[in-house]
Amino acid sequence: MLPATIDDVPAAVGRLLADVFTERRSATAAVSDRVADLTDLIGDFVMGGGKRVRPTFAWAGFRLAGGRTDDGDAATAFEVCAALELIQACALIHDDVIDRSDTRRGRPTVHRAVAARHRERGWLGDPDHFGTSTAILLGDLALSWADDIVAQAPLHPAVRERVVAVWTAMRTEVLAGQTLDIVTEAAADESVDAAYRVMRFKTAGYTVSRPLQLGASLAGAGDETVEVLGRIGDGLGVAFQLRDDMLGVFGDPAVTGKPSGDDLVAGKRTALLAVALRRLDSDDPAAAARLRGLVGRPLTPTDLDDARALLVDCGAAAEIEEEIGRLVDEALAVLDDLDAPADARADLTAVAHALTRRRS
Amino acid sequence: MLPATIDDVPAAVGRLLADVFTERRSATAAVSDRVADLTDLIGDFVMGGGKRVRPTFAWAGFRLAGGRTDDGDAATAFEVCAALELIQACALIHDDVIDRSDTRRGRPTVHRAVAARHRERGWLGDPDHFGTSTAILLGDLALSWADDIVAQAPLHPAVRERVVAVWTAMRTEVLAGQTLDIVTEAAADESVDAAYRVMRFKTAGYTVSRPLQLGASLAGAGDETVEVLGRIGDGLGVAFQLRDDMLGVFGDPAVTGKPSGDDLVAGKRTALLAVALRRLDSDDPAAAARLRGLVGRPLTPTDLDDARALLVDCGAAAEIEEEIGRLVDEALAVLDDLDAPADARADLTAVAHALTRRRS
Repeated sequence: MLPATIDDVPAAVGRLLADVFTERRSATAAVSDRVADLTDLIGDFVMGGGKRVRPTFAWAGFRLAGGRTDDGDAATAFEVCAALELIQACALIHDDVIDRSDTRRGRPTVHRAVAARHRERGWLGDPDHFGTSTAILLGDLALSWADDIVAQAPLHPAVRERVVAVWTAMRTEVLAGQTLDIVTEAAADESVDAAYRVMRFKTAGYTVSRPLQLGASLAGAGDETVEVLGRIGDGLGVAFQLRDDMLGVFGDPAVTGKPSGDDLVAGKRTALLAVALRRLDSDDPAAAARLRGLVGRPLTPTDLDDARALLVDCGAAAEIEEEIGRLVDEALAVLDDLDAPADARADLTAVAHALTRRRS
Repeated sequence: MLPATIDDVPAAVGRLLADVFTERRSATAAVSDRVADLTDLIGDFVMGGGKRVRPTFAWAGFRLAGGRTDDGDAATAFEVCAALELIQACALIHDDVIDRSDTRRGRPTVHRAVAARHRERGWLGDPDHFGTSTAILLGDLALSWADDIVAQAPLHPAVRERVVAVWTAMRTEVLAGQTLDIVTEAAADESVDAAYRVMRFKTAGYTVSRPLQLGASLAGAGDETVEVLGRIGDGLGVAFQLRDDMLGVFGDPAVTGKPSGDDLVAGKRTALLAVALRRLDSDDPAAAARLRGLVGRPLTPTDLDDARALLVDCGAAAEIEEEIGRLVDEALAVLDDLDAPADARADLTAVAHALTRRRS
């Protein structure tokens, strides 16, 4: 059941988590069938899509650190890698409540789906509040189940200690990073520094560096390898988020599954926006004011075209594209110097390119 | 720093968690001071009160199973017992969002405190939504930190396996139980069975049985002791919740710190209410209708007096009081037969009486 190649990680994660959800269903059904019908939404959500980016980086880290892929320890390691997808389920289910998002992956978000079920069944109370409440609890369950997998994994004590060090740091960072994201937005902090800080903790660490380090720790890697993988991951992770920011403004909704210009409408404080405002504030204050007026409110197609033109014409879009290229090149240069199996290095290189050049 | 007596558990938990919060602050401050200012609210919340019921039962379980209280393993065990208070922080912070509660322990709830801060600072966006969003993330952090303590505890592998079995079951049960609570309310399920099922999973297991079992597992107890403690805990736990239900209607706000008749106003489906409705539906349908009309809406002092009179006159309040007495007696009889140190048995007996006879 282990992934045969790096490209097989998403399918292997799916197979493993399907078993986890079946097992957990017996626990929640023991409480009540009504509850199990709701907790099934966690499985539906996770099995319904996602690129399995974090398990993929974790498995890449495991192999880069020389982890063997043909024994029982490898199966345990892969379970821990897959558990990252349950942290991600919690993060997304809760983020969708926080961002008041209606859709995710082209389907209703969990809190909206629960609210719809409440309406259909004519239950008492406010359907939207019930949706939010249930989504909070389902996210908590997903987070608990992620931790369960790590807690139950039969790791050697020395390996466990290293794995837990990465795991604990990662969870605090991503939650603190998400808190930083919303407080940055609330405080109207437009600085490039704040945007990069959010990316570093909320995305780069959580999506790339920590998964790479987790995988390496599962293979028993030493401090030096873990540190180098952290540097590689930080660069790739920021590049990954910058690509996401570009897609959030310029992406094709038919490909991304998200509404056009989503990030602008949501008022997200991206590096793209921060760079554009910094450039326009010094070169063209009137244009800066126009751009500020196009952030954080519903946009017509014409508004969206205007915003895109402002982001392109001031050179911010090109600067971000260059930065993505530079970060990926630097990270891959560090990777080239790493003493690691050649096939594992080739895999990470391919994944890095795929994720920073993607269209969705 | 270990508790000298069972009564010292709350103070010892406070001392231990104060250190945990100091350490975590350096992690969240590394992300941003603005974030640390918000995550400080977790520590403020936990250090601001609470009876430390779960760590107290866990420590009682540890001692009942013969755990020694004078070595390094005891210190580790006590840390895991104290971690229960962080799960509880998550549960309460999230429950207060779900229940839309304004106050807890006589102070503003976390989401209200954050909303107030948002207003004071004139931040952008909806203060209440910001409060909810932040409370979701702070609850997630508390849950993660609880798991961190268990993951980092240097337990012997055989002990770890037993501890993790209880820990994982407990977290899923309490979250599934809380989900059951809100879906029972939404589906207007008035049955006594549903009320008892919520109590069993949301409270009895999580508050008493599982903590007792966790403590016993930390002392290396075998399956039989764990099973017997589960039975004792289920009885005491239901009695504890029934006392809570009585206080939620008849309690003195000056002592409980909660508004008078809180549970009625909130429309909570307690066993007290379920028993009263079952009795009145068969004996006095008009009174049953009056009682239903006094549930789930703001109540005047006269309304509250009427509701209390209905609950008393139909015999429901007396039935619940009797049930509390019966459950405690039965549980303590099982405890008497347990092969455990006499002082540990005396301690659990005293705690059981204190918690089921309390006034707040």
